[in-house]
Amino acid sequence: MSNTPATGNLIRAGDLVLIYLDAKRQFLVQMASGLKLSSDHGAMDIDSIIGKPFGYTGTTHLGRPFYCLKPSLSDIMLKVKRMTTIVYPKDLGYLLLETSIGPGARVIEVGTGSGALTIALAKLVARDGVVYSYERRDEFVQNAKKNVERAGCSEHVEFRVCDVAADGFSDKDVDAVFIDVPEPWAIVPHAADAVKSGHYVVSWSPNVEQVRRTIDVLKEHHFVRISAHEMILRELLVRTQGTRPRERSITHTAYLVKAQKIIPLE
Amino acid sequence: MSNTPATGNLIRAGDLVLIYLDAKRQFLVQMASGLKLSSDHGAMDIDSIIGKPFGYTGTTHLGRPFYCLKPSLSDIMLKVKRMTTIVYPKDLGYLLLETSIGPGARVIEVGTGSGALTIALAKLVARDGVVYSYERRDEFVQNAKKNVERAGCSEHVEFRVCDVAADGFSDKDVDAVFIDVPEPWAIVPHAADAVKSGHYVVSWSPNVEQVRRTIDVLKEHHFVRISAHEMILRELLVRTQGTRPRERSITHTAYLVKAQKIIPLE
Amino acid sequence: MSNTPATGNLIRAGDLVLIYLDAKRQFLVQMASGLKLSSDHGAMDIDSIIGKPFGYTGTTHLGRPFYCLKPSLSDIMLKVKRMTTIVYPKDLGYLLLETSIGPGARVIEVGTGSGALTIALAKLVARDGVVYSYERRDEFVQNAKKNVERAGCSEHVEFRVCDVAADGFSDKDVDAVFIDVPEPWAIVPHAADAVKSGHYVVSWSPNVEQVRRTIDVLKEHHFVRISAHEMILRELLVRTQGTRPRERSITHTAYLVKAQKIIPLE
Amino acid sequence: MSNTPATGNLIRAGDLVLIYLDAKRQFLVQMASGLKLSSDHGAMDIDSIIGKPFGYTGTTHLGRPFYCLKPSLSDIMLKVKRMTTIVYPKDLGYLLLETSIGPGARVIEVGTGSGALTIALAKLVARDGVVYSYERRDEFVQNAKKNVERAGCSEHVEFRVCDVAADGFSDKDVDAVFIDVPEPWAIVPHAADAVKSGHYVVSWSPNVEQVRRTIDVLKEHHFVRISAHEMILRELLVRTQGTRPRERSITHTAYLVKAQKIIPLE
Repeated sequence: MSNTPATGNLIRAGDLVLIYLDAKRQFLVQMASGLKLSSDHGAMDIDSIIGKPFGYTGTTHLGRPFYCLKPSLSDIMLKVKRMTTIVYPKDLGYLLLETSIGPGARVIEVGTGSGALTIALAKLVARDGVVYSYERRDEFVQNAKKNVERAGCSEHVEFRVCDVAADGFSDKDVDAVFIDVPEPWAIVPHAADAVKSGHYVVSWSPNVEQVRRTIDVLKEHHFVRISAHEMILRELLVRTQGTRPRERSITHTAYLVKAQKIIPLE
Repeated sequence: MSNTPATGNLIRAGDLVLIYLDAKRQFLVQMASGLKLSSDHGAMDIDSIIGKPFGYTGTTHLGRPFYCLKPSLSDIMLKVKRMTTIVYPKDLGYLLLETSIGPGARVIEVGTGSGALTIALAKLVARDGVVYSYERRDEFVQNAKKNVERAGCSEHVEFRVCDVAADGFSDKDVDAVFIDVPEPWAIVPHAADAVKSGHYVVSWSPNVEQVRRTIDVLKEHHFVRISAHEMILRELLVRTQGTRPRERSITHTAYLVKAQKIIPLE
Repeated sequence: MSNTPATGNLIRAGDLVLIYLDAKRQFLVQMASGLKLSSDHGAMDIDSIIGKPFGYTGTTHLGRPFYCLKPSLSDIMLKVKRMTTIVYPKDLGYLLLETSIGPGARVIEVGTGSGALTIALAKLVARDGVVYSYERRDEFVQNAKKNVERAGCSEHVEFRVCDVAADGFSDKDVDAVFIDVPEPWAIVPHAADAVKSGHYVVSWSPNVEQVRRTIDVLKEHHFVRISAHEMILRELLVRTQGTRPRERSITHTAYLVKAQKIIPLE
Repeated sequence: MSNTPATGNLIRAGDLVLIYLDAKRQFLVQMASGLKLSSDHGAMDIDSIIGKPFGYTGTTHLGRPFYCLKPSLSDIMLKVKRMTTIVYPKDLGYLLLETSIGPGARVIEVGTGSGALTIALAKLVARDGVVYSYERRDEFVQNAKKNVERAGCSEHVEFRVCDVAADGFSDKDVDAVFIDVPEPWAIVPHAADAVKSGHYVVSWSPNVEQVRRTIDVLKEHHFVRISAHEMILRELLVRTQGTRPRERSITHTAYLVKAQKIIPLE
C-alpha cells in the first residue's frame, strides 16, 4: 500500500480537517498553529497534525487514535455554524443532478440562511462560476459570510442583502435558481425573470401545502416539467451480530420541487 | 454551463436538447441540421430549433406544442445508450456530497459500463479534472466512448481497458474511487493503493451480502468511517384532484457504501 | 378456524383453497365436485383434492406439483371479484390493532364496495358479532353479497342499501365505524352518532386533502386522539444470489385516519 | 348526537381505560375504587370515572379536561409491563391478515416474552380458541401472566414453561405458529410438526442474516410460499401550519417471515 502521499495531500494551516475518533466523536476543525482540541477521549495538538498528510493517524494524550480525514461536502454543510435550519446534503445531492449546473455556472440562491447551501454550490461552480446569495436578514448574512470564508469559497460568492419577494433579483440570466424560503411561491415570479429560459428553478418545503401553492404559481409563470419529490435516506447497519436498517432516524426533511421555464408561444 | 449569458443560451448544432411534449413524451436529442424527430403527437424539424434559445416552444406538424429544454445531468445519465444497468442519479447525488470531489478533482471509476457515471463525474470535475475510467470489456468501452462524446465530456475522460481485480489501477493519488462492479470487495485492495490517504472510496451494490463482504474487506485495508445507506426517492403527485405519493415506483436500486482510507499507526 | 384438529383439516366441497404452483400461479378456488382448473403448467382436477387434507401436494396432468393451501384473510380479500378498488390487507391490519374490535363486536362499514373489507371484518367479529355494511349502489351490493357468501361469512353481515351522507346510519351503538368512501368528511357526523362514545372511527383516503378535510370535521364533532398514518410494505427478496428489497412495488395506497369520540363537557 | 350510551358501554371496576389528556399524557389504567392518578396537569380520581360511559370527559383537580377512552389492542400491547422487547402492533397487524386465524383458532406462540403478542392473539381467538404460549424463562412467564390477567384474557391462554428448541411443542395440529425468538431457525422443525398442514408459520427478526437462515430451514422442512416483508409506519402530521410526515421516527423493527407447510409428494 502506498503511504507516500502526493505533496498536494499535506495538511496545511487554514485547511478544514475532519478529526475522527469514532462515530460519536468527529470534529470539523480549521487548522491553526497553537490550537488544541479536547475530547472525553483526550486532547489533540493541532501542531502535530499540520504538515502531515490527510489520512494521518494521531493519538490523543490518553493514547486513543484519531484520524485526520478529508471532509466531504456533506461534512462541511452539516458543520456550519447554524442560525437557521439547513438544506440536507441528501436533498441537495438529488437536486444537483436534476439541474444542469456544474463548473462555471452562475446560480442564484435565496435565502442565504446559514450558508450551507451557499458553500456547496460555490464548491461546485468553481473555478469561474458564481453564486449570488440573497438574504433579507443581515445577521444571517454576517454568519454565513464567516462560514463561507472558513470553507474557502468566498471568491465564488456574492452576497445580496435584500427582500426578494418585494424587490426581485438584480442578477439575471442565471443557470439555476435555488429557493429555500418559507414562501417559495412569492419568489417564483422573480425567479422566472432571473433564470435563463429552458433552465431550472428548484425549491425546498417541509409541508404539502407549500408544495401545492408553489406549483400553482410555477404553472402560472410558464414553467413546465414540474415535479415534487422527497428523498428518504436509510442507513443499513452492518455489524458482527447482524445487518439491519437503523431503528430510529430522520424520516422527513423537505419536499423538493423542480421546474423548467419556457418561452411561451405568442 | 457557460457564464456568458443570453447569447450563451442559444441552441447550436451538437447541443443536447431535451424535447419535451409531456411526461410520457420526452426525448434527449443531439441537434443536427436536417434531422427530423417523430412522435405520435407529430413530427418536429430540428432545423427549426437550431438558433433558438433554450426554452423555445415549437409546434409539431400536428399542432402540438413542444418545449426545448436544457437537459439536467440526470437526463443525460438516464438517456445514455445502455449496454448495462446504470447508476441512478439519486444514488450518485448522495455519494457526490459524501466525497470531496469537485472542479479539478482526479477520480477513478470502475467499471465504465455504459458511461452514465463517467459523464456525470466528468461534468463535475471539469475544467481541469479528469476521470480515469476502467473497464474489462472492450465492447462496453466502445459504447461508453460514444455516450461520453455525445455528452461533450471526452476531454475529461481517460479510458483504461483492463482487469482491475487482477492488475490493479495504473493511476494513483486520486481524490476518490467509485466502484460499480458486482464484486467490489475484489477492487478494494487496489482502491486502497490508488486513493489519496484520508480520501474516499465508494461503491454500489444491490444485495446485502455484497455490502457485508465489501465492508469486511474495507476494514482489513485500513478504511474508517465506513457506512452503508440507501436512498429512497418518492414522488409526490400534485394534481387538481388531490395530492398523494405515486402509487407504484422503483423501490430499490442499490446500497451505497462509503469509506475513507487512513495511514495506520506503525 | 375450527378447534377440532386433524379431521377438521380435510378439504370439503365449498371450502376456499389456495392452489399454489409458484409465485405467479396461485388461484383461490371454491371446491366443487366436477370442477377442473387449468393453467399453463397443466390442468388440475378438483375431485382429486376434495377429501385430502390442506397442505396436500397434487400434480397437474403435465406432472407439475401444486399445493393445496389454507388461504389467509389477505388472500380472500385480494381475490374477491372486484367492481371497485379494495382496502389493502396491510392497511386493514394496522387499523384492526388500532381499534378494540374482536370476536363479538358490532361494526359499521361504509361503503361496501366489493366486500373485501366486509369479509375481513366478518371473519374477525364472528361468532356472535355483526357487520352492518352500507352502500349506495345496489350493483355493488349484489357483487359483494356473492363474495361474502363464497367466503362463508353471510351470517355475520347485514347489508344496507342507502345513502349515508344524506340519511345517516340506522344502526347505533357500534364498536367501530370503518369509512371507505371518497368523501369521508360527509360521513363523520353520522359516524359520531352511530359509534359508542369512547370508541373508534377510522377512514381510508389516498389524498392529503381528503385527510385534512376529514380531520377538520372530526375535530368539530368531538373526536380526540386523531391521527393519520400510512403503512409502507416492503418485501425483502431472499434468493441464492443475494438478499435485497424488491426493486419495483406499490408505493402508496391510502392514508389511514383514526379517531375516538368523546362526550364533551357540558 | 347520541350521548346515551348502551349500558354495555359503562366503565366498571377492573376495566382497562385509556385516560387521555393529550398526545404526551396518556395512561392505560385498570379501574379500581379508591385509586388516584396524578399527572403534571393535575390529579384524577378513579371513583369519579367508574360508572360513567366510555368517552366521558372528566377534569383534573387543576381543571384540565381528560378523556376516558376505550383502549385499542395496540394500546394494550404497547402498555404491558415489559421485561423484553415486544412485537409491534404494526407488524402483528400485517401478519394477522397473512394467516387464517380468527375466533376459535388454536395457535402457538414462542416465546411469551412480556405477553404483548399473547394478549393480542388471545383477544382475537376468543371465545373458544386458545393460545399455547411457550417460554423458557420462568420470570418472563410470571410477568406475562400478570399482563394477560390484567387484559382479561387468562381463560384463552395456556402457558408452557419449556425449551422448545430442545424439546419441541407438546401441542399439535394448531392453526398457526408465531415465532418470536432470536433463533427462529431452531424452532422451525418443531413448528413443522405442530402446525396443521397447509397452515401458517410466521416469525419476527430484526436482522437480515436471521431471515436468511430461517428461510433456509423453512425450505428444508417442506414449507412453501415463503416470504419476508417489513412494515414501515409513517405518520402524517396534520396541523394548522401545514401537513407533512413526522420528522423523526422508528425506521426499523423487524422483518416478518411467513410460510405454509405442505405434505410433500412421496
